[in-house]
Amino acid sequence: MTGAPPSVVERLAELAAIGAFGATAGAIAGIARPLFSEAECEARKRFATWASAARFALVQDPAGNMFARRPGRAGDAGVAPILIGSHLDTVHGGGAYDGAYGVVAALAVLEALDAAGTETVHPFEAVAWAGEEGSRFPLGCLGSGTYAGLSPLTDVERLVAADGERFTDARDGPFGLLPGVERRATFPVPAAYLELHIEQGPLLETARELLGVVTAIAGARRFRVELTGERGHAGTLPMASRKDALCAAAEIVLALETTARELGECVATVGYLEVDPNETNVVPGRVTFRVDVRSVDDARTDRLERVLHDACVRSYRERGVAAAIVPLERRAAVPMDAGLRALLHATIADSGERAIDVPSGAGHDAMCLATIAPTAMLFVPSAGGRSHVGDEYTEPRDLERGADMLLRAALAVDRALSP
Amino acid sequence: MTGAPPSVVERLAELAAIGAFGATAGAIAGIARPLFSEAECEARKRFATWASAARFALVQDPAGNMFARRPGRAGDAGVAPILIGSHLDTVHGGGAYDGAYGVVAALAVLEALDAAGTETVHPFEAVAWAGEEGSRFPLGCLGSGTYAGLSPLTDVERLVAADGERFTDARDGPFGLLPGVERRATFPVPAAYLELHIEQGPLLETARELLGVVTAIAGARRFRVELTGERGHAGTLPMASRKDALCAAAEIVLALETTARELGECVATVGYLEVDPNETNVVPGRVTFRVDVRSVDDARTDRLERVLHDACVRSYRERGVAAAIVPLERRAAVPMDAGLRALLHATIADSGERAIDVPSGAGHDAMCLATIAPTAMLFVPSAGGRSHVGDEYTEPRDLERGADMLLRAALAVDRALSP
Repeated sequence: MTGAPPSVVERLAELAAIGAFGATAGAIAGIARPLFSEAECEARKRFATWASAARFALVQDPAGNMFARRPGRAGDAGVAPILIGSHLDTVHGGGAYDGAYGVVAALAVLEALDAAGTETVHPFEAVAWAGEEGSRFPLGCLGSGTYAGLSPLTDVERLVAADGERFTDARDGPFGLLPGVERRATFPVPAAYLELHIEQGPLLETARELLGVVTAIAGARRFRVELTGERGHAGTLPMASRKDALCAAAEIVLALETTARELGECVATVGYLEVDPNETNVVPGRVTFRVDVRSVDDARTDRLERVLHDACVRSYRERGVAAAIVPLERRAAVPMDAGLRALLHATIADSGERAIDVPSGAGHDAMCLATIAPTAMLFVPSAGGRSHVGDEYTEPRDLERGADMLLRAALAVDRALSP
Repeated sequence: MTGAPPSVVERLAELAAIGAFGATAGAIAGIARPLFSEAECEARKRFATWASAARFALVQDPAGNMFARRPGRAGDAGVAPILIGSHLDTVHGGGAYDGAYGVVAALAVLEALDAAGTETVHPFEAVAWAGEEGSRFPLGCLGSGTYAGLSPLTDVERLVAADGERFTDARDGPFGLLPGVERRATFPVPAAYLELHIEQGPLLETARELLGVVTAIAGARRFRVELTGERGHAGTLPMASRKDALCAAAEIVLALETTARELGECVATVGYLEVDPNETNVVPGRVTFRVDVRSVDDARTDRLERVLHDACVRSYRERGVAAAIVPLERRAAVPMDAGLRALLHATIADSGERAIDVPSGAGHDAMCLATIAPTAMLFVPSAGGRSHVGDEYTEPRDLERGADMLLRAALAVDRALSP
């Protein structure tokens, strides 16, 4: 290597230009890098260019994941690598930090080890997981889920994008796997997995803290609720004779909100609601809405599910409004590895920095890796808690601090896991 | 005249076939007779045919109203007529009784007077008001409102239908005023106005009563409420940091419902509500809904309006969700004439029938006529309170009883108003 590698901040700015749209003076509307699109492929090429310049071996797998490898000390052939990474794809209109930050910082860890001539026990791999956002193909954490064996590769290969293209055609097409990069058909189990990410929520900013050690990735449940009352004339149907499906929905929405506030450490959201027939002078006969509840504590999501159920029963008993609850999605909470969390806290404290425990309300690749290896996540603050928007923002010094802490933590993990 | 006139029930069945659509075995989906459509014109022609067969003079006016006149006793030239009627137009998908019943019954009153050779002090006019439903042209009670001077004819003549046709072109076109029928350019003030109508609500049926004397036509106010909170990630935004516009809307909806129930004799409805962005995993940033409050007692609508205002203020104070209330419509309650109401009750009691006082939640032509002459309305039950639907229904014996009571009431009014 000649000279210091470009900073994490500079490389993030480079990536932010790839897939950006709606640019006005000094700002963009957002970034669109769906998996195997021209922009997403360009981002992977940039990663490969940086890795090659640093002379790291590159490898990609049939799920679309790409790895830059730095060997461990001599005779590491049988030693499982320490994986560090995140993803390069974005939602449509996403920001510059979600995913990209963790990939750029992982590569910077490898480069810093080279620059310092540090020898590690384990090989280190910086990974860019494919399609974390469910961008393009209808499966979140597509690459990491396949890697961890949660989604069989044969199932993933049968996926079809909304635009009609098959996964295999996209992967093997012009914006798929990179030509000239080694392919690996296996998904080797790592010794540990570390992921650095922006918080995507306001907890760190609100607490005026700069680093968060993730306790767990929240479990999530989603339901569709269909309420059937009776439509009627808004002028002539007396209040006592009504079976108003919107009033019933309002009670259920507030019951969920009240319980989530009382329980703490959980969230309940009704983000989608439709009224039928939705006319000013007609008492609503039907309302359909969706409920999203999440918590790092499955007992709390259980409790919220019961509250939803009870509120629906009450709606029928007290209002004659019938409710059907259709489960849409169910994902248990994924705790991060206790040993790695302690190690992160110790490393941060040793550097004279402070960190607090935070939950992750959003899903991450770490949630899949945690099923096969000790896994931990480190968060840096998000301005205003904003994410999945063009003006997602984290202060440069926070980005650099996070990347530095990732390097220290990776070294601590390397030492801690050594035989 | 030769023989008894056909019954009200038979004539309603004839009219029900005009404009009916979606017929299946024994039932229709609904009736569509918008003002100055082929079907509505056909219904007016039927009215004219019946009136001519009974040798009543026919007259129509530039607002589209049509009158069948039976003279009073000799020398009635200066005597104002007693008007009885309703309307022949329907909403799209309306039923066989709303409006048509009152017109057919009014004509039957004139025919019954002829059949019995009864001489009245006042001339009697059976009237079919034009466009009560706001069908086709964007103005409810178009004909009666113009007649009563509430809507200047020059304004009405400038109205344009949703299909682009101008009022004057429609009125003077093939489905407008009937050729060969006398035109009258004035709107003579009547001595009194009576209207017989189906209830369109469940009060009579619930109380197991057969006749209702209308106390007042409810005043109505409509508002659009725009709530602006802050959108956020459903997984990462803690409950305590949210400005959830849908939760705020839910509280306002329930505050209105609770107050309307407690106050009694009023209704409050949120029939229309839209969520933005309306996505499962996004805390709603904006909600727009419309409020419809009605009561025969303006103090109660005042109170509901204050509750709406207070709930919006609370939503800002407690949730940081800002509310804008945009008034859309405001109509004061219209009490029916106390003398005529007493006369109706006495007439009904004299016939050995019973009646209760009921409010009218819906608007009617009587609401316009009440501004220029003593006005009263009589209701018969609606099955299930249903109205503005194809299966609107009233028992034949209830229809005949109502028409008979209208005749008796008209005679009582004729006597009572005699000098």
